[in-house]
Order: sequence, then C-alpha cells, then structure tokens
Amino acid sequence: MSQKIQIFDTTLRDGEQVPGCQLSTDEKIIVARELELLGVDIIEAGFPISSPGDFLSVIEISKAVKEPVVCALTRSKKDDIDVAGEALRYAKRGRIHTGIGSSDIHIKHKFNTTREKVLEQGVWAVQYAKSKGVEVEFFAEDSGRADLAFLAQMVEAVIAAGADVVNIPDTTGYCLPELYGKRIKYLYEHVSNIHKAVISVHCHNDLGLATANTIAGLANGARQAEVTINGIGERAGNTSLEEVAMIIKTHKDLGLHTNIKSERIYAMSQLVSDLMRMPVQPNKAIVGANAFAHSSGIHQDGFLKNSENYEIINPDEVGVPCSSIVLTARSGRAALKHRMELLGYQTTKAELDVLYENFLVVADEKKKVEDEDLIALAAQMPILVK
Amino acid sequence: MSQKIQIFDTTLRDGEQVPGCQLSTDEKIIVARELELLGVDIIEAGFPISSPGDFLSVIEISKAVKEPVVCALTRSKKDDIDVAGEALRYAKRGRIHTGIGSSDIHIKHKFNTTREKVLEQGVWAVQYAKSKGVEVEFFAEDSGRADLAFLAQMVEAVIAAGADVVNIPDTTGYCLPELYGKRIKYLYEHVSNIHKAVISVHCHNDLGLATANTIAGLANGARQAEVTINGIGERAGNTSLEEVAMIIKTHKDLGLHTNIKSERIYAMSQLVSDLMRMPVQPNKAIVGANAFAHSSGIHQDGFLKNSENYEIINPDEVGVPCSSIVLTARSGRAALKHRMELLGYQTTKAELDVLYENFLVVADEKKKVEDEDLIALAAQMPILVK
Repeated sequence: MSQKIQIFDTTLRDGEQVPGCQLSTDEKIIVARELELLGVDIIEAGFPISSPGDFLSVIEISKAVKEPVVCALTRSKKDDIDVAGEALRYAKRGRIHTGIGSSDIHIKHKFNTTREKVLEQGVWAVQYAKSKGVEVEFFAEDSGRADLAFLAQMVEAVIAAGADVVNIPDTTGYCLPELYGKRIKYLYEHVSNIHKAVISVHCHNDLGLATANTIAGLANGARQAEVTINGIGERAGNTSLEEVAMIIKTHKDLGLHTNIKSERIYAMSQLVSDLMRMPVQPNKAIVGANAFAHSSGIHQDGFLKNSENYEIINPDEVGVPCSSIVLTARSGRAALKHRMELLGYQTTKAELDVLYENFLVVADEKKKVEDEDLIALAAQMPILVK
Repeated sequence: MSQKIQIFDTTLRDGEQVPGCQLSTDEKIIVARELELLGVDIIEAGFPISSPGDFLSVIEISKAVKEPVVCALTRSKKDDIDVAGEALRYAKRGRIHTGIGSSDIHIKHKFNTTREKVLEQGVWAVQYAKSKGVEVEFFAEDSGRADLAFLAQMVEAVIAAGADVVNIPDTTGYCLPELYGKRIKYLYEHVSNIHKAVISVHCHNDLGLATANTIAGLANGARQAEVTINGIGERAGNTSLEEVAMIIKTHKDLGLHTNIKSERIYAMSQLVSDLMRMPVQPNKAIVGANAFAHSSGIHQDGFLKNSENYEIINPDEVGVPCSSIVLTARSGRAALKHRMELLGYQTTKAELDVLYENFLVVADEKKKVEDEDLIALAAQMPILVK
C-alpha cells in the first residue's frame, strides 16, 4: 500500500522571505491559485504579525483557494497567535504553525532561557492556538541540532497538548541524510503518542542536502514534506517541491505518493521565477533550462538511440515541451547527422566526415552551432542535396 | 585516523560540455591554475579526440600545472586512447580516463552488444591505456542502474587489467543516497582485488541528490570524488565541489579530509561563473549570493544574538567577506535597531516602535529597504540624534 505524503508549500512564506522576492498580495493570490491546481495539500500563506501586507495576504489567500489548507506562521506568543487566528478567519481549513527553538544553541543563545521554560511555552502556544478553532502545527526550531531525548520529550508534550502536526526542521541545513533519517526514526521509537500526529520534515539546503534529508525523513515515517517551488528560501533555500515530487514518482520502491500533478511543475516554476525575479539556474534539477539538454557527443549519440540511456524522467511528465540536443564542439557525428536530417539533408558517410571536420572548426569558434551555421556549411558542399 | 579524499575536478570536461559554457584554451589554463591553488588533486582537462580545441587544451593544461594529475577522457577505442596519450605527453602525472557502459540499458540500447563483449572491450582499453605509461582510471558508465553482480565482475576484471582508479558513475542521476551507498558497499564486499584500486564516485544531479550520493559513496569506502565548481555539468549538472568539500570539513564525524583550501572557494566559484557565463543561483549552497544572507525577523534577531543560531559555516571559511542582514518587510525590530546603530543612530524603545511602524510601510512598498531610506525615515523623527 502506497502511503500519501502531504505536500506543504511554503513558497509564499519561507520562500518569500528572500531578499528581492517579496510579492504583492495580488501576486501571492496568483501563486496560491496555481499551487492549488498543482495539487499542493497545504499552502503556508504568510507570517501575519510580521507586517500589514502579510496579514492581508493571508486573508486574501484564504478567500482565493478552496482545497488546500491555508497556514499562517507565528512565534509562541499570544499576539502572534491572535493575529494569525484573525487572518485565517476566511479559510475553509485554517492552520496555525507555531513553535519555538528546541536546540540548546537556540534555547541558550536566542531565547536566553531553559529547556523547561521552552517546553512550557511551546505547550501553551499549542493549546492557545487550538482555542482558535483551527488545525495546529508545531515547529521545534533547529531540531537538526537538538538533543534527541529532549526533542522527543518536546514532541510528546506538544502532541499531548493537541498538535495535529509536528514539524522537525533542520533549520540551519546542518544534517546529513542518514543522521536526519535516524532522528525521525528515533522519534517514532521513543514518542508514545506519535501516531496521533503527522510528522513533518522541513529542510534547508546550506550543505546541498535538503532534498536528500527530506527523502530520508519520509523513508523513516514522516508524512508531510515542507517545500518551495525552485527550492527558493532564505540563505541557500528550502527543499525543492519539484525534486521531492519527482523522486517519489520515479522511485516507486519508496512506497509513497503525492497529489502533485507533475505536468504542471515546469509552468509553476516559471511563474514563481518571473514573479519573484529570481532566475532558475540552468542546471537546476527538473526545472532548469538545461535539465533535459544533451550536448556531449557520447550522450547525444546514446540519447538518439534511446532516450532512456540518459533520461530517467520524460520531460513531458513535468511539462517541459521536449528534450533538446545542443550542438557544440563536444557533439559527435550521430548528433550532427540527426540534426542535418531534421533540416532535410541526407548525408553519406564520406559527406558526413567532411561536414563534421568543418563543423568542428565552427564549433571551436562559436561555442554553440545553430541551424543557420549548418545550412551555410551545407551550402559549401554541393554534394549535399536537400 | 582521518582518511584523505582525492578531489577530481571535471569542471573543464564534464562542466565545459554545458551549452554556452565552452572556454578557450587560454581561459581553461586560467581555471586550471586556480584549481591547482584551490588544492584539487586531479584535473580532468578534456576529451582530446572530440575536437582539436580539446586536444590543444589538454596539452596546454599539462604544461601549466605542476601538482595535480592531469586527466584526459576517452571511450574504449584505440584512436581515442592514442590521441589522449599524445595530448598528455607534457603532463608531470598524466591519467587516461577510459570506460564503457555497464548497465543493461546502455549495453543493449547504446552499444547493441552483450555483457561479455563490453567486459572484454573494457579490459582491453585499460591494458592499452596502461601501455601509454600513464595512470589509468576506468569508468563503468551508468553504474547506478547496472546489475550489481555484473558491475562487481567488471570492476574486478579492470582492476586485474591494471586500472589504478575505478569510477562508479550514477550517469543519469537516478540513485537515492542509501541505494548508491549500498552499491559501493557491495563492491567492497564482493570484489576480491578492490583494495588495489581507488574507488571513485561521480554523481549527477537530475533528482537533486548528487551531493548526498557522493557523500554516501565516500561513507561506504570510495576515496575519490568527481566534482565541478558550482555543480555545473550536463543536464542538471554534476556534484558541487564546494558542497562536498564543506560537508567533509563541517562533519568531522565522517572521518574524512581533503586538500581543498576552502577560503579560495568563493573566488573560484565567481571565476568559473564569469568565464563560463553561467550565473550562480542566489540560493546556491555555499557560493550563492544569498547563502549567508539573513532576511526574516526571527532569523535576523537570532543571528544578531549569536551567528551560530543560523550559520553552520562561517562565511570567512569559504572566502565570502561577511554575513549580511537584508532589511525587508520580514525584518524585525532587532535588525532595524542594529542597522540604525551601524548608521550611528541610538534609539529608545519608544523611538524604535515608531520608526519600525514607518519602516514597515516603506518595506511593504519597496521590497528591500536601503540605508538611505532609513536615513530619510530618521530625518522625519527629530528625536533621533545621530
């Protein structure tokens, strides 16, 4: 039996915190509606007490979407929770996401307090948030570096206080996948009431491991993944929705599934990139401009024989129109012959050899050889008949 | 005892294959010299038979660097190996990197042959490459999807034939970290002569897992990592040198070390990005513009109290001048107060409250609040004395 993973998208909260990425309320509504069509289960819409703009956005997103849960972030403070409850009043299903630090580094250096007081405040925050008549998710900030026994105690206490979901964030992106997976496993083994809540994973990419850590968490029992489109987010960003969704889809052996309509991924990525003025690196997995581009000779030759030689995902599956072959000095005869055929030229082996030599001269100069260059080369060889 | 990991940089071969990233020979020499200063152990300098430009570059890089091994790629073909041997004639230590497909998909759909013939050709290629008087590395292409028993047989045979290094590439970026780690472990348990060679990991990022897979491989016995600067490379790219180097440095518990001079990482990243005209995504781990930028109120407050609350790597360690606090609508009073102090303003709590309200109005409009905006706000409040 395949297990359902809830996709919690925080593009509009953790993603939108990025310098230069702030969106207007109207823009956030556009993104939220597209996230709904993409099949996201929960939309984290903002941090209402942080600014009047964020407050308004949570209200308007609550009105704009039907299916997804709308979530608002708070600290473990009365004012935060009051304002979040207010902002969620139009949500069909609202969720308050409250929490507090769980690592000794955060407890001592950020809150200047003790484990006992942090625990007490966390429990109070969950109970107070529950009184607003919404779902409650608790985040144990900096879980990745927290003492495990204390973390288990905190998770048990907030579940007993009524938390529906408990988020175990690797706030600083410190964990290795094996380590993070073991933390989730430890919680399942040591928290007696853990099956009364959904365990959520929220990873940061400071060491380039957010996606791997998220998968390790899910493989060890977590059933919600907190992600952003294109992996945007503070510092090195959050876990990429598209990577997690496509790993789950490609690796059936994980025994997991999501509601994500993968064929909408590429358009969603472009929308967020455009609105947030945040370019997607060409070699970004799944959604980068080069993700399905083949340029070396060895790869092009193999790809033309059978796309499965070099592609594990069909670009159609994620809404990318087609794989592309880019001709450069690294391309081989097979790719050149294929492109000439697409342009309408049939070549004999001898003709192709001559053409390929000329092609390499152009390619060493021009980096990327375009169709018009090939037509010009062909024109110098009267033997080539179109 | 900490174990040394050889860093094999393929920025100039697998990275340079990327559409639009081709470099001139002079540019490659600049990059190679910087790679030497960075502390890279092996520089893969090109694929000599693929074009005259690549052939020349391998020669010139061989002349330009002293310490690193210079490596040239070939297929398992006589002409390839002859040309590579020729290109490496000036290398102080040269290496030929030859190989052939190992997965049934590649054997059948790319080479249209049998396991036996592929094995025979691989062994022949290693022996022929050895006859050139250089080190020989063998790649078992598409190892990530190969039948494990056959892969072990191939690794054993090429080591017996004299391979100094055997590369187990996840060519299509298909593997999950646990799976990839288990493949390396299996080889150590089933290949009788495995300790006569160095096992190398070469991962692609199609599912966003290249770094995690590389670390899983090293944790299971591999002692060479094939990487590129900024993770550039075909499709979604290769494993990032900077991520692997900083994970090994940060996680002492792995018991590994490299020769990488981490404080040169940022400048190296910028050089490759500039020369290859390939922008680095702002949220790229370690080297992105935002990798050490803190913008949310909760994070800024914690960061100002103690940078360890939100930073696991000191930016100085990778040559980034300093962490930065960017003021946006998500910033809190602590960050605003800190910035005002840097600008020379002392504020009382009451003054800060008024200033913060005005700040949020500007921030909701302007996305990012600059120092001049703050000075303008302060000028409206005569109580603030500079």
